[in-house]
Amino acid sequence: MDVRGRKLSELAALVGGVVSADEDPELYGLMDIESAGVGEIAFITGAPGKEFDISAIRASALIVAKSFPEIPVPVIRVDQPALAAALIHQSFCNKPFVATGISTHAVVGKDCLVDHEVSIAPGVIIGDRVHIARQVVIHAGAVIEDDVVVGEGSLIYPNVTLLCRTEIGKRVILHSGTVIGSDGFGFVTDHAGRHVKRPHVGNVRIDDEVEIGANSCVDRATFGTTWIKRGTKIDNQVHVGHNVTIGEDCIIVAQVGISGSTELGNNVVLGGKVAIAGHLKLGNRVMVASKAGVTTNQEEGAVVSGFPAIPHRKWLRAATAFQRLPDLISEVRHLRKQVAEVIEKMVAPEKRDVDR
Amino acid sequence: MDVRGRKLSELAALVGGVVSADEDPELYGLMDIESAGVGEIAFITGAPGKEFDISAIRASALIVAKSFPEIPVPVIRVDQPALAAALIHQSFCNKPFVATGISTHAVVGKDCLVDHEVSIAPGVIIGDRVHIARQVVIHAGAVIEDDVVVGEGSLIYPNVTLLCRTEIGKRVILHSGTVIGSDGFGFVTDHAGRHVKRPHVGNVRIDDEVEIGANSCVDRATFGTTWIKRGTKIDNQVHVGHNVTIGEDCIIVAQVGISGSTELGNNVVLGGKVAIAGHLKLGNRVMVASKAGVTTNQEEGAVVSGFPAIPHRKWLRAATAFQRLPDLISEVRHLRKQVAEVIEKMVAPEKRDVDR
Amino acid sequence: MDVRGRKLSELAALVGGVVSADEDPELYGLMDIESAGVGEIAFITGAPGKEFDISAIRASALIVAKSFPEIPVPVIRVDQPALAAALIHQSFCNKPFVATGISTHAVVGKDCLVDHEVSIAPGVIIGDRVHIARQVVIHAGAVIEDDVVVGEGSLIYPNVTLLCRTEIGKRVILHSGTVIGSDGFGFVTDHAGRHVKRPHVGNVRIDDEVEIGANSCVDRATFGTTWIKRGTKIDNQVHVGHNVTIGEDCIIVAQVGISGSTELGNNVVLGGKVAIAGHLKLGNRVMVASKAGVTTNQEEGAVVSGFPAIPHRKWLRAATAFQRLPDLISEVRHLRKQVAEVIEKMVAPEKRDVDR
Repeated sequence: MDVRGRKLSELAALVGGVVSADEDPELYGLMDIESAGVGEIAFITGAPGKEFDISAIRASALIVAKSFPEIPVPVIRVDQPALAAALIHQSFCNKPFVATGISTHAVVGKDCLVDHEVSIAPGVIIGDRVHIARQVVIHAGAVIEDDVVVGEGSLIYPNVTLLCRTEIGKRVILHSGTVIGSDGFGFVTDHAGRHVKRPHVGNVRIDDEVEIGANSCVDRATFGTTWIKRGTKIDNQVHVGHNVTIGEDCIIVAQVGISGSTELGNNVVLGGKVAIAGHLKLGNRVMVASKAGVTTNQEEGAVVSGFPAIPHRKWLRAATAFQRLPDLISEVRHLRKQVAEVIEKMVAPEKRDVDR
Repeated sequence: MDVRGRKLSELAALVGGVVSADEDPELYGLMDIESAGVGEIAFITGAPGKEFDISAIRASALIVAKSFPEIPVPVIRVDQPALAAALIHQSFCNKPFVATGISTHAVVGKDCLVDHEVSIAPGVIIGDRVHIARQVVIHAGAVIEDDVVVGEGSLIYPNVTLLCRTEIGKRVILHSGTVIGSDGFGFVTDHAGRHVKRPHVGNVRIDDEVEIGANSCVDRATFGTTWIKRGTKIDNQVHVGHNVTIGEDCIIVAQVGISGSTELGNNVVLGGKVAIAGHLKLGNRVMVASKAGVTTNQEEGAVVSGFPAIPHRKWLRAATAFQRLPDLISEVRHLRKQVAEVIEKMVAPEKRDVDR
Repeated sequence: MDVRGRKLSELAALVGGVVSADEDPELYGLMDIESAGVGEIAFITGAPGKEFDISAIRASALIVAKSFPEIPVPVIRVDQPALAAALIHQSFCNKPFVATGISTHAVVGKDCLVDHEVSIAPGVIIGDRVHIARQVVIHAGAVIEDDVVVGEGSLIYPNVTLLCRTEIGKRVILHSGTVIGSDGFGFVTDHAGRHVKRPHVGNVRIDDEVEIGANSCVDRATFGTTWIKRGTKIDNQVHVGHNVTIGEDCIIVAQVGISGSTELGNNVVLGGKVAIAGHLKLGNRVMVASKAGVTTNQEEGAVVSGFPAIPHRKWLRAATAFQRLPDLISEVRHLRKQVAEVIEKMVAPEKRDVDR
């Protein structure tokens, strides 16, 4: 937390919230409700649960929902407490940019354009003809190859690799070990069963405010560009194949794999471990539940689960039924026996003892 | 694209194709059909679709199938246009090797044998007794530990790690962030429930023309060698366990996991996210569909899906049936009711109103 | 193998085994039964199989089960041959620690406390205020950021990243490419559908004797600590989300994903590719089979499979039944026809030919 305090009223204004408090306390940071202490503001996302104990609260102020009951603690009331908390927390964390320049232990190639207001750590290796805009931070061990462009305010963590001709937008965050611009997985098999490599002469473009987690991979296009659009957030260990296009403001959870040439619309949500086949189109606001495998195009707003993926509701009913399969089989066996007996009786009606 | 032009006839000869053209244009590169312009050759893999618009083609020549109709553009006719295009594209991309030598910002240990005709980038760290053959390229941030051998013409991308005693063949390509030779996951649990580590004293051997994608891992053997044979292509984020053997010319798609001591034959294909249990044998040309989990040995040529994996055809029928499970259950419930009534009637025949 | 030999009796004492041999041979290493030669000890975990050929054994001694038959080779008899072999193998592999100090090609920041008895390789980058205890080994290309603590005897492989404020215990092993302390995947979506980042001000704590495989990720907590407790072993490419707690002596196989805020007890076992949803509690000794997806809390000792995960026994029966689904559907169709006919007959009894 930084030292400069902020008035409760100042924070409320920041998030368009309504203050209900007798005083206007000075606050120095945001914390979760359990750990927040004097001088800190905390937040409660829901209504107070049974276990909610007002006397246990040490925070000097709270962010709560508009509907939250009156409590003897200064509060900011908002529509979305979690959102307001994130914005207020960011305001506490945002420090003025301090440029450390280019470390003497970094290596920068020929004909690069590097703004003077940057922080490039020891052990960073930068190729030729690289452009790095102002307020870019590059951590130790990152490798930026030839002809890469990194936009203003982007943050590149340790041991990230940006391969040649990658285009990184503004305020992009790339976490450690992530690889942008590796060759796509493209081969043609000859008569002898050998796999002939397709040269990959395309690149990767990552637009403003995209964030990509640790040890993820985005492959370059065979021709053209693999493109991740503004505001999309990608978790750890995600694989994005060559020539994929991902729309704006998508959420892609950890360990997802997206095969080559697939196109996602805007605001698409992919749960953890989802697999998307190649050459598909997923419309805006499509939601895919965790572990699903999508093998067909999906209309705007579709919500799907399972493999092959089907409408989520339908899958839920089938998945529940799945557990009852063994009972179903024995029941059908029993029915078969009964029906055979019934038929027996009808052919020879003198017999009358039917198994029930 | 390089500057030297190639005659259409020259390219046709390269792929054993038949030229049908009035002139023999000079070509300077290969592009996809949408972007190819004057002086470039493009390719069409299939027959011309409805949308195929000859007037939209800007390319100076095309690679097409033998059966492709006559068009007023110079063409090379071949059996496999995609294959011919890959080979022709490679011929355009292949530049004469330029050795930049060992960067002054690289570190090379004791008693290494490094050919003079190599390119070793800044930030590369090489251990002791390492052998690096001619025309090897090692990108920035790669770490090559003691007693590693890298064969002629191999290409090692940024931030790759080769651990001690790894053997890399000729013309191998290893993409960024990949780790070769990490310890296998081998422990023995004692009476107290603690896991005692088995030392891993084996190594990894990767044969000629193997390519491995970004952020993949190949673990070293407990004893002996984890072995990936000639021509096998592995995608991103694949895990290959200790003591695994992978045959020649296999295709292993992204995010596959292969457990310890399993053996794959030649020309095996594993779809994305496939899991293979340990100590199994998969015969030549086995194909495993995406997301499947293989828990038993597979005969040569087997095609399997699902978890546990079963013959693909069988799985397809079961997966379709799965969606109808809820209806099936209500139908059986209805049958049960009908049968009960029928039996009722037979015991007391005076009643005659049967639910239908 | 090191040069100093060990008497068979010495090794037996080490593992509390009983020697049955006429002499007390000097041994120089441990190998697997196929490769062990003169001067080496090997181990046999089970009873001798049919194929067991005593004459093929070149090892000078064997570790076998107490029940193992008498053979004309010096043996150590123990309860768990695999465990004894691991311990004996460790004793051969353990060399006295040799401190190479801090490489002149490493970079160490301000105000660090680094023990003099360490080995820090070329290309290692260490930030400010880092504490590194005695007998720590850090391999090339590893990045240790500000305020990290690394405990005594820990081993950090090449290209590992430890982000700020990470706490590493004693005798921890972190394999190449692993990232500890990347931001958790935490966003709040605003009315416009944009995802606002939650600052992640927590850290990661990894306790003594934990081992983590290659290219795995452990995210830092939003607030507080993501915590992996003593003795837990984690394989390659595992994702551990923010605020997760993993108990002691757990086994987590490759490519597992654990979502945010989930808590695992002690001795939990997660098979390969398992997915665990967020905010769950898994009790001590829970076992989750490979590829399962856990969506609910699990009692101590539960053994579950499938997605959504259910008791393993139940899942096995359902998974078997799944393959018979298509037959079941046609059988039900046939029953429906028969029942309809039976009812037909009862209404019009003069007809008597019933399909059987």
